[in-house]
Amino acid sequence: MIIALKPGVDAVKQKQLIDWFEEMGLGVHTSVGSERTVLGLIGDTSKVDMELVESLEIVDSVKRVSETFKMCNRKFHPEDTVVSVGDVKIGGGHFAIMAGPCSVESEKQIVEIAKEVKAAGANLLRGGAFKPRTSPYDFQGLKAEGLALLKIAKQETGLPIVTELMSITDIPLFEDVDVIQIGARNMQNFNLLQEVGKLKKPILLKRGLANTLKELLMSAEYIMANGNENVILCERGIRTYSDYTRNTLDLSAVPMLHELSHLPVIVDPSHATGIARLVSPMALAATAAGADGLLIEVHNDPMHALCDGAQSLRPGEFAELAERINAIRTVIKT
Amino acid sequence: MIIALKPGVDAVKQKQLIDWFEEMGLGVHTSVGSERTVLGLIGDTSKVDMELVESLEIVDSVKRVSETFKMCNRKFHPEDTVVSVGDVKIGGGHFAIMAGPCSVESEKQIVEIAKEVKAAGANLLRGGAFKPRTSPYDFQGLKAEGLALLKIAKQETGLPIVTELMSITDIPLFEDVDVIQIGARNMQNFNLLQEVGKLKKPILLKRGLANTLKELLMSAEYIMANGNENVILCERGIRTYSDYTRNTLDLSAVPMLHELSHLPVIVDPSHATGIARLVSPMALAATAAGADGLLIEVHNDPMHALCDGAQSLRPGEFAELAERINAIRTVIKT
Amino acid sequence: MIIALKPGVDAVKQKQLIDWFEEMGLGVHTSVGSERTVLGLIGDTSKVDMELVESLEIVDSVKRVSETFKMCNRKFHPEDTVVSVGDVKIGGGHFAIMAGPCSVESEKQIVEIAKEVKAAGANLLRGGAFKPRTSPYDFQGLKAEGLALLKIAKQETGLPIVTELMSITDIPLFEDVDVIQIGARNMQNFNLLQEVGKLKKPILLKRGLANTLKELLMSAEYIMANGNENVILCERGIRTYSDYTRNTLDLSAVPMLHELSHLPVIVDPSHATGIARLVSPMALAATAAGADGLLIEVHNDPMHALCDGAQSLRPGEFAELAERINAIRTVIKT
Amino acid sequence: MIIALKPGVDAVKQKQLIDWFEEMGLGVHTSVGSERTVLGLIGDTSKVDMELVESLEIVDSVKRVSETFKMCNRKFHPEDTVVSVGDVKIGGGHFAIMAGPCSVESEKQIVEIAKEVKAAGANLLRGGAFKPRTSPYDFQGLKAEGLALLKIAKQETGLPIVTELMSITDIPLFEDVDVIQIGARNMQNFNLLQEVGKLKKPILLKRGLANTLKELLMSAEYIMANGNENVILCERGIRTYSDYTRNTLDLSAVPMLHELSHLPVIVDPSHATGIARLVSPMALAATAAGADGLLIEVHNDPMHALCDGAQSLRPGEFAELAERINAIRTVIKT
Repeated sequence: MIIALKPGVDAVKQKQLIDWFEEMGLGVHTSVGSERTVLGLIGDTSKVDMELVESLEIVDSVKRVSETFKMCNRKFHPEDTVVSVGDVKIGGGHFAIMAGPCSVESEKQIVEIAKEVKAAGANLLRGGAFKPRTSPYDFQGLKAEGLALLKIAKQETGLPIVTELMSITDIPLFEDVDVIQIGARNMQNFNLLQEVGKLKKPILLKRGLANTLKELLMSAEYIMANGNENVILCERGIRTYSDYTRNTLDLSAVPMLHELSHLPVIVDPSHATGIARLVSPMALAATAAGADGLLIEVHNDPMHALCDGAQSLRPGEFAELAERINAIRTVIKT
Repeated sequence: MIIALKPGVDAVKQKQLIDWFEEMGLGVHTSVGSERTVLGLIGDTSKVDMELVESLEIVDSVKRVSETFKMCNRKFHPEDTVVSVGDVKIGGGHFAIMAGPCSVESEKQIVEIAKEVKAAGANLLRGGAFKPRTSPYDFQGLKAEGLALLKIAKQETGLPIVTELMSITDIPLFEDVDVIQIGARNMQNFNLLQEVGKLKKPILLKRGLANTLKELLMSAEYIMANGNENVILCERGIRTYSDYTRNTLDLSAVPMLHELSHLPVIVDPSHATGIARLVSPMALAATAAGADGLLIEVHNDPMHALCDGAQSLRPGEFAELAERINAIRTVIKT
Repeated sequence: MIIALKPGVDAVKQKQLIDWFEEMGLGVHTSVGSERTVLGLIGDTSKVDMELVESLEIVDSVKRVSETFKMCNRKFHPEDTVVSVGDVKIGGGHFAIMAGPCSVESEKQIVEIAKEVKAAGANLLRGGAFKPRTSPYDFQGLKAEGLALLKIAKQETGLPIVTELMSITDIPLFEDVDVIQIGARNMQNFNLLQEVGKLKKPILLKRGLANTLKELLMSAEYIMANGNENVILCERGIRTYSDYTRNTLDLSAVPMLHELSHLPVIVDPSHATGIARLVSPMALAATAAGADGLLIEVHNDPMHALCDGAQSLRPGEFAELAERINAIRTVIKT
Repeated sequence: MIIALKPGVDAVKQKQLIDWFEEMGLGVHTSVGSERTVLGLIGDTSKVDMELVESLEIVDSVKRVSETFKMCNRKFHPEDTVVSVGDVKIGGGHFAIMAGPCSVESEKQIVEIAKEVKAAGANLLRGGAFKPRTSPYDFQGLKAEGLALLKIAKQETGLPIVTELMSITDIPLFEDVDVIQIGARNMQNFNLLQEVGKLKKPILLKRGLANTLKELLMSAEYIMANGNENVILCERGIRTYSDYTRNTLDLSAVPMLHELSHLPVIVDPSHATGIARLVSPMALAATAAGADGLLIEVHNDPMHALCDGAQSLRPGEFAELAERINAIRTVIKT
């Protein structure tokens, strides 16, 4: 930690500050410049309250130079993590497409879509059983019944399933789920992160609407620090003033997360844009930006979807998109 | 719901759309203009997926005119709700100051601060026992022990206590807590909202960092729809590009929430700004904007606070502030 | 314009409102619903102050259904506009890469870079002569001398030149410039837009940091309404809370602008990210999203660039990128 | 400037970097820590491209510790600047209210309003003659005729006038204007800032919709560096995701600007909120936050205002507000 003092600081106050740091067991390296004095703290500075120090009258600015995230940090783990879901691999050059409807609605619906997305090239089946909804009066998903229908679709197609968990109390129901999704609204539900950290299953962690990349990585760290290193990061759009799309897809997060972390990074263009006709261009763009996979909403009857129909592709559109994604993967990999 | 069709729409497609709405049990009022046709839907349109309709090729735009929030809506409940906590009242002309440290650290600390803030005019004691922290390696609060210390401080001073609940599983520990705070990160933790909706205690619901006023009200609706009408709304800063303060305090939310809802609205200038020397001007501004109360961090030893010390007032500063707040209340009420 | 009145509106006030509209020469179509009354205005509603109407006590909401932008609107001009700069075409399936240094520094520098980017496949040479800088103490560009050096580079390579104009008073100096760039900070400098609208040259209009797509199109409309239809739109990142990149590149703007307008849309990944190693992935992503061109900073000596060196590619990196861009173009066009 | 190198940096590359800084005439102070090496640069670092250094492979982070704004900086000018406009003073304990219509429409209108706001306690008359409008098809103001009408209103009431300048070419018309306003969209129109810097008149500089406080101060620095020290800063709302108000009024900017700069700071609650019934609470809040003045839209016939009518107060409402503002000033000053 580097602390720049204000010019002309009182020597007594400066000494008090240095004594305080030394009391905390830290070494203090004092560098006297022409304009100002700079203190360098040596040792475990994780207990130092940076904002408190910054607020002191004699301090001009503070900079922390040690890393706050460790297990997900590429500096300490240079090779890409590859997350395995059955035979499917994600990360480290392996690309996976997760496709399916926003909500599981019926056996017929989910089995049909599962077959269609599999034929078109999807590697995993996604579908919501527990649905976070802004309004208490909106459809909240088929819940346990929805999970049972997803399992039937898995048996029929062999596709592993990805579905969202909203509450600690529902964890026992998710035993047969292959990948547990933590939604954007729960990215900082720290108790939930700790509990899924105790599982061995892959966790798909979505970035919150107003969260920085560092906060996303700290949330991954919560999961990993509890023992589960199978974390997949997901960019799904952030909230900005821009009003034509539901959210603003931040694709520069893909190469930046790859630089900061060894974890795989996928992109959800369906929720980010909220508009079906933008899903294909944004899926292609995400692939070109180096994403390790995609999460795409596909519905075989958009006119009657119970939720989010406006952002779902039809199976035919999805099949066409999957082909182009593969072609772009070839360009990127060479 | 009002649906403007694109100019020159195909008559067959228009009929299909109208038939589809009628199948759903809705009346359709067709208004043919010089430039375009507009459909008005009559009946319970809550099941209509507005985004789906908006995405249809023949549709130009959709506008929902019925209300999505009901129980917290001032239209259906014109008088201010007054929330009572023991003898303290909040809302409807009653103003309350909640003050205390970010974290409960020790019996001596919390009892001393409680006495000081009471003497200075605080109406409730706030203090964190369960602390949401971005990093899994940061101090997470004294938890159950912290709650026990808060109760001691309550016995010593008579001040009701306000403290944050982060997980459904901890609810049994909160039996003696007077006001349960739901933090900004949990504003859309819908399972937690439903559970505190089953309690009878007042709930202090903080606005999320990237949430609209409508979303805040929908989260209040989750609590109220489960049976608990004692909800206090709290503005605590939103995340913007502005980088001098931790968040941007959105004070226009105060009069706007009062217009939309009958629930009391308080403001937390400490977390919003993150800088102690901005707390007083922002507390005065919030009072002038018509807030029903304030949540203010006070610490008797900011240099050694375990977290967020940079934003805490000392008891003397708080006492001075409380006096000015009262003077502004007098100006506002006349 | 559609105006939903509040439920239970006073008949006298409703009549006053209708009379007021009729005085303005508008037809009013009244539709009485079970819950509320809706007014539809017919005629030229462009003079109606939507916000004023929205603020009236008896009005619940207002929606404008006619278009505010006309000349750049795809509805009234379905085919893509193709902008020609010498032999280079942009839009309607034609893709152009504009490359070069942030600032023109010397004849040697600009001629060398021009040759290198031409060899690597660039179609136009970009370089700043007039530089908008946040600080009055920073380097402001070589100005007229910089324009002269750009012309030399054009003579040597045949590449048309693109450079930024900041002030009406400098227009006479830009006679030999092929494409005039209006920077993000001047996107709503309406006097400047009007003046370049009187020229015949192509105008590259960059989106402002906090501007919506509609505002960008309205600024294009300022240029077109003054007689110049050769406008190229440019997405260059918007300001959000996200702090890892300088700005957040909003790539969904590309397909959305193509839907709303017939004008060509290019992307500037260099200014958007501010980090050289993110330029290539974002350039590829922009191409995959359907952009009609790219604006890329290339410098032959990034260590000594006078400004923005951190975001410039070296010529070798640019050449490699140009090849991949072409490969992605092939995928997209099929 | 403090540069933290990455751990385990190659000695040769480190030496190259140090040599490069020394070539630029800077002293380099090398501090070798247990984890990493930190370089402190001594001398005039204003020419060092911080982003370039930050992007170098061996560099972890860079922090600039010297100030980038000088003339408007409170560190170098501790006393408040008081701007005088005739007999009116703004700043340093002097509070001024600028009131009037969005647009000057006719002699009768502007003279009547001027008389009414003067009677209610306004200190200056504001009114738009040149109007920046998003659409080229909207009313752009009465221009020179509007300025002439403002002068008549000044003669009738004695109130000094404040009005917006949009273009360098119009400066000769503004000779009799008392305070020149630079609007939010022109906050970084650097040529315009330089030109008004050559005048002696007070300049009211509005914060741009997406500009930081540092950028606002750098724009003030442009004016001051050209010789005009009479700058008044104005907070008028920033663009955020929040959608109930037109912009989000950032009132914490008031005390923060006062800390960073000696210039007076006023607030415009009318444009910030865009809703007349929020103007009074926000004006009171701004006063309580310590603003040195207010800019308030007042119209004597909001139903027929040509623009922005939705945000204008009627004279009676303004008179009531002015009284409360004075009462809050009394609380704040004691």
